Amino acid sequence: MPFDPQEKPLAALLAPDILDLLEESPSSVAAETEELHPADLADVAELIPREQVPAFLAALSSARAADVLEYLNEDLRRDLLEEIPTSQAAALVSQMTPDDRADTLEEMDQEVADEIVSELPAEARAETERLLQYEPDTAGGLMTTEFVSVSEDMSVDDAFTSVRALARSGRKEATYAIYATTADGRLHGVLSLRELLAAAPGAKIADVARSEPVSVTPDTDRQEVARITANYDLIAVPVVSESGHLMGVVTVDDVIDVIVEEQTEDVQKMGGMEALDEPYTSISFWGMIRKRGVWLCLLFIGELATASAMQGFEEELTRAIVLSLFVPLIVSSGGNSGSQATSLIIRAMALGELGVRDWKRVALRELPTGLTLGAILGVLGVIRVVMWQKMGLWDYGEHYWLLAFTVGISVTGVVAFGSLIGSMLPFALRRFGLDPASASAPFVATLVDVTGLIIYFLVALALLRGTLL
Amino acid sequence: MPFDPQEKPLAALLAPDILDLLEESPSSVAAETEELHPADLADVAELIPREQVPAFLAALSSARAADVLEYLNEDLRRDLLEEIPTSQAAALVSQMTPDDRADTLEEMDQEVADEIVSELPAEARAETERLLQYEPDTAGGLMTTEFVSVSEDMSVDDAFTSVRALARSGRKEATYAIYATTADGRLHGVLSLRELLAAAPGAKIADVARSEPVSVTPDTDRQEVARITANYDLIAVPVVSESGHLMGVVTVDDVIDVIVEEQTEDVQKMGGMEALDEPYTSISFWGMIRKRGVWLCLLFIGELATASAMQGFEEELTRAIVLSLFVPLIVSSGGNSGSQATSLIIRAMALGELGVRDWKRVALRELPTGLTLGAILGVLGVIRVVMWQKMGLWDYGEHYWLLAFTVGISVTGVVAFGSLIGSMLPFALRRFGLDPASASAPFVATLVDVTGLIIYFLVALALLRGTLL
Repeated sequence: MPFDPQEKPLAALLAPDILDLLEESPSSVAAETEELHPADLADVAELIPREQVPAFLAALSSARAADVLEYLNEDLRRDLLEEIPTSQAAALVSQMTPDDRADTLEEMDQEVADEIVSELPAEARAETERLLQYEPDTAGGLMTTEFVSVSEDMSVDDAFTSVRALARSGRKEATYAIYATTADGRLHGVLSLRELLAAAPGAKIADVARSEPVSVTPDTDRQEVARITANYDLIAVPVVSESGHLMGVVTVDDVIDVIVEEQTEDVQKMGGMEALDEPYTSISFWGMIRKRGVWLCLLFIGELATASAMQGFEEELTRAIVLSLFVPLIVSSGGNSGSQATSLIIRAMALGELGVRDWKRVALRELPTGLTLGAILGVLGVIRVVMWQKMGLWDYGEHYWLLAFTVGISVTGVVAFGSLIGSMLPFALRRFGLDPASASAPFVATLVDVTGLIIYFLVALALLRGTLL
Repeated sequence: MPFDPQEKPLAALLAPDILDLLEESPSSVAAETEELHPADLADVAELIPREQVPAFLAALSSARAADVLEYLNEDLRRDLLEEIPTSQAAALVSQMTPDDRADTLEEMDQEVADEIVSELPAEARAETERLLQYEPDTAGGLMTTEFVSVSEDMSVDDAFTSVRALARSGRKEATYAIYATTADGRLHGVLSLRELLAAAPGAKIADVARSEPVSVTPDTDRQEVARITANYDLIAVPVVSESGHLMGVVTVDDVIDVIVEEQTEDVQKMGGMEALDEPYTSISFWGMIRKRGVWLCLLFIGELATASAMQGFEEELTRAIVLSLFVPLIVSSGGNSGSQATSLIIRAMALGELGVRDWKRVALRELPTGLTLGAILGVLGVIRVVMWQKMGLWDYGEHYWLLAFTVGISVTGVVAFGSLIGSMLPFALRRFGLDPASASAPFVATLVDVTGLIIYFLVALALLRGTLL
């Protein structure tokens, strides 16, 4: 169900006050905004005049400004970091969590990013360079290297003391989970901070941690990371090397971002275009034309075949012009049923309900489904022709019953064919290593249209030869 | 990018051993499966023969069986709980977390559910009855009532002692966050367990908690809960009453389920059908026909207007049969561009990038975009006609240049019109309180097809009068 748009009311409320403050006493901005969530401050930064944003960020402590940057939209963040002096940019990004730092640098101009990295403190630089090696769409590209691990030989009490010391040090480690490692650093168990609190102080970590925790490797696809997180209700997924060493952690907030981004890509591809990769509201005019135009041209070229198919039946059309009246109706029925089938299969694949090997099972299901749906529409088609004739709304000639059956049988065949093609296209795309979500409604319609025309004219030839044809 | 299907390899590996164990020594099943994640055991339960499942669950402790039930697919869980004696079912569901218990009972036959509730221990019964009041698609329907709250007057040390005691009591409260309440029970602050550890022991909770935490009310729509969770990177969202009292907490694992379910609904609606509300692999044949057939019939009835439109131009068609050849090409171009536009807008709305009030801005953007895309396709159309003529592939007659321009100009107009209608339909649906995701590609195509025909024939009349017409 829909609900009212989120108009960022809080940010809209705050922005004027913050602008006033920036003008009158910039030094008090930090204290006055202390209680606000950095996500809201990021919204404010996106709302106020662009030229005021650097002053706004400068008025905050660098730790706070780094928090705000993490929530800022990609374009604005990149532009801001590219326009300030490298040393300032380095100071800011060094305060970010390692995963956000790497993501931020990845978005930037390679040269500027390299300069910023070179000015980072040694430890942060090494960490950043390591994270930047991984593809952004893998577990390695998502993970943060700040996590809490304890040796499994430790006592619960000692582990607790060490976790508390870490918490007091003010570092940013996520304590979603505490990982227990063997003497040589392999991940061997996991427990929550709560479980650590609940355990008997004298027990050994190895005895209280759950062993063999779910984990991924740095090159695990981000969608697989998301599926594992959802399946096991995790709030963090450990990332281990081939040899079983703990390398990092993907946290649930990043997983949610992945799920939302992947969905956006799927929806856009299913609409018959390339994924935009940036918000509708911020993409440039020509960027938009390119993302939509390429597929639109390909589909148009595919649809040109319908003109050739029509030409192939021009003789029949000339003899019985009445046949042309139902052409849009018939081809669209196939496209619609194909669109349904393809959406169902794409989604079932994304949810892991269907795999490549299920294509036969799906085909055997879609064929009777399509025939049944087609028969229902076919009956509607027959009724339409006969009713118009009987009511005197149009004269289809003396053979109107034959024409009605031509329409009805064609619709049945075209709908069944559309369901079959629509359901098989995602399998075919996946089989060839392409994204099944590219099986858009327009793509399916294009495939079905030519065949729909051929089915229609063949049925017409079979039924109407000797009468209309 | 696609990846190999998740074929539940772990469950497939475990199932034979567990079946053997069930036969040979059922009493050892609990101990042997102790280390496994309940999600994996649920996969096993879905894989083994249906008649073995009750014995498998009976072999586990009831707490463990309850955990497995929480991860089981809805249909199997409902059937299992409905077929065992009510007292056993009550014993099982009483071990579930309050939110999963309410969800489970909600799925069941009302009468059976009522009986089970009546056999629950008094406290669990009251809690369950309270949760069952809320609509499943609201924060109240998602929240659990087991959370950790401390008085804001407490010292950090005392709060820590109380949280530790709670953890040791073995109850299931989520310690994602610790909520600080005023003397009269209003939510006033939040801190993580980690922040509690880091705080000075003598400090007051009120001083260390972040005040005014983000919260929702029980009737907040679940999509809004999801958006807030994603926006603020939360792992739990507190649910407060009108008067500000803390009533429960929605945890991030449930939020992920919401995001995935909503997306499934959107994709299916965008495919031109009702949301299935159950997996493609498990819905019945006639259930499927109903979910797809209703929209397919409505769309077909809408498309019948194309036959009437064609009838309206029958005279022109008879005079220039060549016009009919391009009918499928032209109407499909409008449908394709409309499909792109509608997918973009639906997604931008779902992400909160666009609200109802942005319709004018979008229209002013889609019109030039559509005209540009249309012009590109129009040129392709002109080339097609002229090329076929020049290459001798088809003879469109002496006025082939006029025909080419008729096709080119029509395509431009139809694509621009398709983009406009496709982008405005989600706004219109939302304006009338309907789900914008119902603006499916087939729905848009149906709206565009009739208009596309009219545009085509009007352009033809303007350009070809006196020559072909």
